[in-house]
Amino acid sequence: MFNDFKLMDDRPVSIQVKEYVKRLIIKGALQAHQKLPSTRELSTLLSMSRNTIISAYEGLEDDGFAYVVHGKGSYVAAAVSSVAASSWELDWGARVNAHARQAVELDLMKRGIRAKKGTISFTSIAPDEKLFDLDNVKRAFQDRMSVEGNVLLNYGYAKGYKPLIDYLLRYMDHKGVDLKGKDLLITNGFTEGFDIVLSALNRKNGSVICENPTHNTAIKNLKLHGFEITGIAMERDGINLQELEQALSDKAFDCAYFVPSYHNPTGIVMSPEKRQTLMKLMTRYQVPVIEDGFNEELRYSGSHVSPLMAAAGQGNGVIYLGSFSKVLFPGLRVGWVLADRELIDYLESIKRARSIHTSTLDQSILYQYLHNGNFEKYLRKARAEYKRKYEWTKQCCEAFIPYEQLSGDGGLHLFVAFEEGFDTRVLLEACSSQGVIFTPGDIFFTKDGQGRHTMRLGFSRVADEDIGKGIRIIGETARQLRG
Amino acid sequence: MFNDFKLMDDRPVSIQVKEYVKRLIIKGALQAHQKLPSTRELSTLLSMSRNTIISAYEGLEDDGFAYVVHGKGSYVAAAVSSVAASSWELDWGARVNAHARQAVELDLMKRGIRAKKGTISFTSIAPDEKLFDLDNVKRAFQDRMSVEGNVLLNYGYAKGYKPLIDYLLRYMDHKGVDLKGKDLLITNGFTEGFDIVLSALNRKNGSVICENPTHNTAIKNLKLHGFEITGIAMERDGINLQELEQALSDKAFDCAYFVPSYHNPTGIVMSPEKRQTLMKLMTRYQVPVIEDGFNEELRYSGSHVSPLMAAAGQGNGVIYLGSFSKVLFPGLRVGWVLADRELIDYLESIKRARSIHTSTLDQSILYQYLHNGNFEKYLRKARAEYKRKYEWTKQCCEAFIPYEQLSGDGGLHLFVAFEEGFDTRVLLEACSSQGVIFTPGDIFFTKDGQGRHTMRLGFSRVADEDIGKGIRIIGETARQLRG
Repeated sequence: MFNDFKLMDDRPVSIQVKEYVKRLIIKGALQAHQKLPSTRELSTLLSMSRNTIISAYEGLEDDGFAYVVHGKGSYVAAAVSSVAASSWELDWGARVNAHARQAVELDLMKRGIRAKKGTISFTSIAPDEKLFDLDNVKRAFQDRMSVEGNVLLNYGYAKGYKPLIDYLLRYMDHKGVDLKGKDLLITNGFTEGFDIVLSALNRKNGSVICENPTHNTAIKNLKLHGFEITGIAMERDGINLQELEQALSDKAFDCAYFVPSYHNPTGIVMSPEKRQTLMKLMTRYQVPVIEDGFNEELRYSGSHVSPLMAAAGQGNGVIYLGSFSKVLFPGLRVGWVLADRELIDYLESIKRARSIHTSTLDQSILYQYLHNGNFEKYLRKARAEYKRKYEWTKQCCEAFIPYEQLSGDGGLHLFVAFEEGFDTRVLLEACSSQGVIFTPGDIFFTKDGQGRHTMRLGFSRVADEDIGKGIRIIGETARQLRG
Repeated sequence: MFNDFKLMDDRPVSIQVKEYVKRLIIKGALQAHQKLPSTRELSTLLSMSRNTIISAYEGLEDDGFAYVVHGKGSYVAAAVSSVAASSWELDWGARVNAHARQAVELDLMKRGIRAKKGTISFTSIAPDEKLFDLDNVKRAFQDRMSVEGNVLLNYGYAKGYKPLIDYLLRYMDHKGVDLKGKDLLITNGFTEGFDIVLSALNRKNGSVICENPTHNTAIKNLKLHGFEITGIAMERDGINLQELEQALSDKAFDCAYFVPSYHNPTGIVMSPEKRQTLMKLMTRYQVPVIEDGFNEELRYSGSHVSPLMAAAGQGNGVIYLGSFSKVLFPGLRVGWVLADRELIDYLESIKRARSIHTSTLDQSILYQYLHNGNFEKYLRKARAEYKRKYEWTKQCCEAFIPYEQLSGDGGLHLFVAFEEGFDTRVLLEACSSQGVIFTPGDIFFTKDGQGRHTMRLGFSRVADEDIGKGIRIIGETARQLRG
């Protein structure tokens, strides 16, 4: 015994010794009330300083694994060992419910193609971390810590970190949103906000209307919440209003979900005129709107376009979900819900029951970063870089891909549609064997089997050279497949 | 116009000017294609450097609120203004469902007594932030940032941050847990873990068995998930096994929820013998156990006690929910679920659908902090301090409070029971008018109206002097009420 000890990593040695002895005790190799080797003996045996062993033994005592008899030494404490109750096997597959099974079925991360090393991958629309201004983030952390210190590490509020809430309210005010009668809840990114909103909404008809195609995480969560989804076709300048009005008059909906700017996956920005008419329609049919503010900041050209919530003026029919995740730092899980004050009060209680509150550290660092004026600087840099990549990717698509339609007014991806009947799953098969992958478009459609002829190309994290190389391969392979 | 501009705060001036002009445009004070004052004019008007105005105008251009006509100046961009669609009022009270309404009803934070300034409050069992070793947290942040940098700010994995997962697996192994066939999921604290587990479990009988009283957040979430709760009375050394066996033989349960160590609110530690028998019972009746590892680290005396999951050996019937929130930093929203590998796979997909993943920054800072060996040092300091406070609080209770039973083997609170019929809500009324508040015990009981004669005293954040003063007041007031 004791001679098989070895240092596992660079953690303090005394802790590794403590844990080693702990294991011997737990596994029963050392029995209750058995005497432990003296600190001198063990220090010789392990050739370590005696102090290291002493503090290891103190640790064992602190943790209740050993006790000291003065003048005699350390002994193993009683009642430590836990002889297993008759080992017990449950069939968890039978213990989980339909919701859990559906969550796995709809979990694309578990069914996506794994990219081998060196693969050119157009599947990501996450920001390019090389652009992150880490020093400003570090400064924000230090600044905030020196202002508030320890309180940042203790419990915060379900509603969110007050300075950030105030900052975001002003931020939304500057987008032209009328804040009267509205309030804001901080969430763990867009996804938690969307999930909380869906679990609060009354299910009178159990149906939701949205653009088709649309954000696949939204489709997933709508399904997980048991909503039936009606998808409305997209046009070059946004959702098809005739189809929308037809659907609204045919059927009652509990709510609508729209991505008006840099729509995922088509990248289309809904025209200001359409936004006005859309809001008039939703008002007439009294269908509340969940607006996904996704990527609004990644405008590369043209005039500023106000969110739907701005078009609603003092009206309270729009629930705005915001996040900087595609622009700033997705690793900081911070998003927000701006909506009618009464509704936010309900959402706050659900949030508290779900996760108490969002990381105070994430919120306070983000706040300080924004407050220091880093966002504007960063955005200029990021916009310039993404704009360049966006134009380059577009150019490559135009040069190499035999598409029928190419869309994307900004953001971090383009959307390609081939002629009906062409199958991008087959294309993906053929391309991945050549080291190039992308996102097949069908996952963004509200009905299974739709959009098999489409694909999304995320360029944010692909090097210029690879963009050219990858898109050429996709294009050539597509031509071969079409014969 | 422009003469009512004033600096609002310490953010960069050019940004404040940009936002000021933005507002004028959004509110329609500046019309589309109207010429903006030249940068020279405006710099004179606002008596600011011309460069400030120039970068403000550049910002307006970046954001699509203005465009430049070379040689002529800057103009307001078109299609900015968003004339509100006919304002639209929804009755959100009628649009939310029963779940949302229940979440508000059960939200104690919205019904607790607000403590006026200077009030002595025994309501909190959060750690005392004065004990936090902030410098080590800052170091952990810097260490991790210098190792990994930008990737920490980009997307992570739903399952959690790998180094932390590995650390926690070893941590649980050292508690005597057999890891074979098990896996670990990182969550936003205990609460999200519990919520995810409950939403995955099959509801065959719709009923759960637990200690009575028990953790009130658990009661809340069980109710929000529609479970019917059967509470089993507590004894000095933990749950009453006869009552438990009776209930198990009378009725089928989907799962059990237990807090074996420093049970909230009684502070009782279940004896090793009871743990063994309890596990044998649960195995016989095949009822999966959700174990709340709450406060296991705050042992002040006696031998180490292994978690129930250790007693289950290789069995997969126990779901262990861990968190350092009551010991370390609650502001870092990090907890974990250790359970059967197959089950964790389901929970991971639910977690991804709920919030994608837990803050990478929180996880990596916590990992580095633990890895640096700070936890052991901190725990020694915290244990010593809390032990002192614990003994002092106990002493005060024994001296001043006419209780029938006083419990609490460790942790950050004590639990007081007066004789049946005594009403701690009335006591609270009387005390709060004297500037002392505590948590009435009824909120911890599974049936309404139970435990009116009990109260919980959290001492972690109360100064020694106030502990003495506050408990004397509670005691004297109790005597008066009992006449």
